Amino acid sequence: MKTGAIELGHKTSDSTPKTSVNRGISILDFILRIVAVIATLASAIAMGTTNESLPFFTQFIRFRATYDDLPMFTFFVVANSIVSVYLFLSLALSIFHIIRSRAQVSRIVLIFFDTGMLALLTAGASAAAAIVYLAHKGNTKTNWFAICQQFNSFCERISGSLIGSFGAILLFILLILLSAVTLSRS
Amino acid sequence: MKTGAIELGHKTSDSTPKTSVNRGISILDFILRIVAVIATLASAIAMGTTNESLPFFTQFIRFRATYDDLPMFTFFVVANSIVSVYLFLSLALSIFHIIRSRAQVSRIVLIFFDTGMLALLTAGASAAAAIVYLAHKGNTKTNWFAICQQFNSFCERISGSLIGSFGAILLFILLILLSAVTLSRS
Repeated sequence: MKTGAIELGHKTSDSTPKTSVNRGISILDFILRIVAVIATLASAIAMGTTNESLPFFTQFIRFRATYDDLPMFTFFVVANSIVSVYLFLSLALSIFHIIRSRAQVSRIVLIFFDTGMLALLTAGASAAAAIVYLAHKGNTKTNWFAICQQFNSFCERISGSLIGSFGAILLFILLILLSAVTLSRS
Repeated sequence: MKTGAIELGHKTSDSTPKTSVNRGISILDFILRIVAVIATLASAIAMGTTNESLPFFTQFIRFRATYDDLPMFTFFVVANSIVSVYLFLSLALSIFHIIRSRAQVSRIVLIFFDTGMLALLTAGASAAAAIVYLAHKGNTKTNWFAICQQFNSFCERISGSLIGSFGAILLFILLILLSAVTLSRS
């Protein structure tokens, strides 16, 4: 009887910290997701609302620069929008994990979609970054001129909008790591 | 005595399929990694050895097109090389997982690095894809001309070299999913 009680006590003290640590990780997961929603949404809005009108107009330079002049920027806005909607929806699952910290299948589903969304977000951010680089530096070999000399504030805005996206990429890597740690503990 | 034997038998039959399924997943992991090594290495080599010399030369068109004319292609080659070396090294850990199918910490480490490498590879592939798109279609708004009309075989080669990279991205997503499934089972 005594041994049983000790064993029972042992089991409880062994399982409670595990559960509470998992719950702590789940709460951290929830907070990181909210930050990532804000980061990707800010990126999408910053890029999507960028336009610059020039007071002059020559044969080579257009009046107005907007994000949809280049398909990579459109892709960037779409990718960031999709990821922010996904992250917002995933908050529900994140809350579920705070309540039921031993859930396994839903965590695997979350890791899978997180990984897919990480790839989508990285693709969008990287394609946009490649064009931003070209816009700043141009390329003499292919005869692509730097457009940032004309569209200065446009370039500053599109460069800035990349920050949120790359921040969200780091958050995703962290989120996947946290999910893996929780999976191994549950 | 009899109950004990039944319980023991129960435990064994419950744990053996789990271990053998984990071992099966680990072997699949190993095979997918080998395929991914080949895919990324082929991409790096295909892009890295691309060059085209033209028989004529005007004010705008250069004699010769090589991958290092554009920094995004250099990044693509570097990213693919790093990822293929990483994948090759990770084979050791993959073999370790086949032998010790209940290992947990090493799986978490693997998920973390896999995720980081996925992001690196996607960034490289996507930046290169953005430039390949520009090379094919050009962009009238920014006055960047399509260079594929001149450098036809160069363009075909660089477009083809993206395939291995994007294939490896899908393999990485699958590898992370497999690791997550094994983590939840061990």
